[in-house]
Amino acid sequence: QEIKAGSQDKEYFQSYADVGIHEEMLNDVVRTNAYRYAILKNYEKIRGKVVADVGAGTGILSVFCVQAGAKKVYAIEGSALAKQTRLVVEENKMADRITVLQGRAEDVKLPEKVDVIVSEWMGYALFYESMLPSVLHIRDRWMKKDGVILPSSASLYIAPFSDDEISERLETWSAMKEKYKVSMDCMKTYAKQCLSYGAHVRCICPEDVIAHACQLVNFDLSKVTVQEVTDIQRTFELTCFGSSVLHGFVLWFTVSFPENVILSTSPYSQSTHWGQTLFYNEEECDVRQDTQIQGTITMKPNKAKPRFLDVNIGFQIDKHNIQQKSYYMSDNIT
Amino acid sequence: QEIKAGSQDKEYFQSYADVGIHEEMLNDVVRTNAYRYAILKNYEKIRGKVVADVGAGTGILSVFCVQAGAKKVYAIEGSALAKQTRLVVEENKMADRITVLQGRAEDVKLPEKVDVIVSEWMGYALFYESMLPSVLHIRDRWMKKDGVILPSSASLYIAPFSDDEISERLETWSAMKEKYKVSMDCMKTYAKQCLSYGAHVRCICPEDVIAHACQLVNFDLSKVTVQEVTDIQRTFELTCFGSSVLHGFVLWFTVSFPENVILSTSPYSQSTHWGQTLFYNEEECDVRQDTQIQGTITMKPNKAKPRFLDVNIGFQIDKHNIQQKSYYMSDNIT
Repeated sequence: QEIKAGSQDKEYFQSYADVGIHEEMLNDVVRTNAYRYAILKNYEKIRGKVVADVGAGTGILSVFCVQAGAKKVYAIEGSALAKQTRLVVEENKMADRITVLQGRAEDVKLPEKVDVIVSEWMGYALFYESMLPSVLHIRDRWMKKDGVILPSSASLYIAPFSDDEISERLETWSAMKEKYKVSMDCMKTYAKQCLSYGAHVRCICPEDVIAHACQLVNFDLSKVTVQEVTDIQRTFELTCFGSSVLHGFVLWFTVSFPENVILSTSPYSQSTHWGQTLFYNEEECDVRQDTQIQGTITMKPNKAKPRFLDVNIGFQIDKHNIQQKSYYMSDNIT
Repeated sequence: QEIKAGSQDKEYFQSYADVGIHEEMLNDVVRTNAYRYAILKNYEKIRGKVVADVGAGTGILSVFCVQAGAKKVYAIEGSALAKQTRLVVEENKMADRITVLQGRAEDVKLPEKVDVIVSEWMGYALFYESMLPSVLHIRDRWMKKDGVILPSSASLYIAPFSDDEISERLETWSAMKEKYKVSMDCMKTYAKQCLSYGAHVRCICPEDVIAHACQLVNFDLSKVTVQEVTDIQRTFELTCFGSSVLHGFVLWFTVSFPENVILSTSPYSQSTHWGQTLFYNEEECDVRQDTQIQGTITMKPNKAKPRFLDVNIGFQIDKHNIQQKSYYMSDNIT
C-alpha cells in the first residue's frame, strides 16, 4: 500500500483565490490582448533589446516580449509564484531568453540596464494596490536613459453616476415586512450609510454616467515621480446631461502604448475585470440638464496599510451644499 | 452654505461587506423561514417564557420569539451591530419585550435564567466560524435545567462528488495557447494543486453526488459539550453508485427543531446561502458501481486562528491507496 502525503509547501501552493486572480486576469481578453498587440506592434522598440517585466505573474508579458524579438527579458516577480513563472518560461522553451528574478522590485539586482520596461501594474481606480511605485523604481534604477516604458501613459477619469440597481437592492430591507412580518426600514438607512464607507467595483452601463467625464490625471510614465503618483489632489468640473439622480462618482482609467494601442476600462468600452470603481455619496440628490458639479478628490496610500487607499471626495452642486466624504479602499471592496 | 461632514463613526458604520452578510442571510428565505416556522410552531414552549437569542444580528429571531408570545427576549450581539439591533427592536415596537445586550456570550450577564435559547450559529461545513461554543456557554451558564434549545440538534454529512465544471475551468489554462500563443499547461497542474489547499463553497447538483451520504455527526444540542464540537474525529464508509470520476468530498449539514421543522443545506434540498462545502482531492480517480470508499475526517479550530478550521481527510478506495490531505478553511474560501 502506497502512502501518499499531501503537499504542504505552504509558501508555494496558495489558496485557490490566489490562482483565481491570475485566471481572471488572463481570461480578461481586453486586458491581455491590449498588452499582446502593444508588444507585438512595438516590435521595433523591442527586437534585439533587453526588457524588464515588473510583476511578471504567470510570465505571459515576458513571453510576448520574446515573441516580439527581445534579446533578453528579466521577469521580476515578488511572490512565490516566481517558481511557476519559471515553469511557464520552460514550457515555452524560452529559458535562454527569459530570466525570472524572485524579489521585490526595490531590492532586485539586474545584471545589466534595460532598454524597455513592460508592466501591468494597474489596480482598481488605477492606484489601489498599485505596483506603479515599484515600476518607477525599476525605471529610475535600471532603465537606460532613452529607454521605453510600456504602457507609456496613464489617465484617470471621474464622472457622476446614477444607480437604479442600488435603490432596488436597498428596497429588499423594506421588503422584510412583507416577507417575514418584521419591519426593517432602519436597516435600509444603515445599509445606505455603509454603502459610502468604501469603494465598490462593478461594471456600470453607459446610461448610468450622467455627465461627460473629467480627466483627473494624465501621467507620462517616462517622467512621473513616485511622489506625484502617491499624492493625488485634483479638482474637477462636470456638467450634467438631462434630469437624473446623482448617487455618487465613478472612476476609471486608460493606459496607452506607442503605436496607438489603448487599454480602456471606461464604461463605454468592452468591460474588463477592473470594471469601474464607484464611490457612493451619503445622500442621493437630483440633478438637471446643465447642473454644475464642482469637486475635489484626493487619493493617497493609507498610512497604516500602504496597500490600501484613502480617498476623499468633496463636491458642490450649482455652488451649493459642499459635501465632503472620506472613503477607505481596503480588501473589503464589494 | 451648509457644510455637511461625513459620518466617521468607524466602529459603527462598517464596510458594505458587513451589511451584505446580513442582507444575504435575510434574503435566504429557506434559512429565515425555517427559523420563523420553527419559532411559531413551537409557540407553546415560548409563550410567556424568557428567551436568549445568541448572536442576534439584525434581531429578527428575537422579533419572531415575541411574535410567538415570549415574555422577554435577551438579544445578545457581540459586534457594534447591536446598536442597529436596538433600532430594529424599536421599529417593531418591542423595546419592552426585547433587551439587546452588546457583548461576548462568554462575558454577558443576564438578569435572569432563560427557558429557551434560540440561535443561528451555523457556519460553512457547520463548524467554520461557528458560534456553537458560545451558544453552549450560554446554555450551561444561563439556561434553566429543563430549558429548550432551538435548533435542538445538528447533523453533518459527507459524500463523494464528481465535478465537470472544475475540469472545464482548468481547461482555460490549456486554452491560453490558442488564445495568446502561450503554452500554460503547467499552470493547470498548479491550479489543480491549489484547488485542494482549502475549502470551496458552492451549490452542487444532486447528480454530482456519487454515493449515498454518510452521517458524520448528530449532536443533541441540549447535551453536547464544547470539547465534543471542537474536536471532531470520525470515520466514514461510502458505496458509489455507477461509474464516475471522484474529485473530492462534499460536506453539508441539517439542523432540526421540535415539531418536525428541519433546515437542510443538502444538495437535494432548495439551496441556501451556505451552499455545500467542497474539499478537492489532489488527484481525481475513477470509481465504479459499488466502489467502497473508507475514510477518516478530523475538524478542529486552527490553533493560531481559532475562527478558522483545520480539516484533514484520509481515504482509501477498495482498500487501496490511502490518501491523506490537510485543508485549511480560512477567509479565502472560494
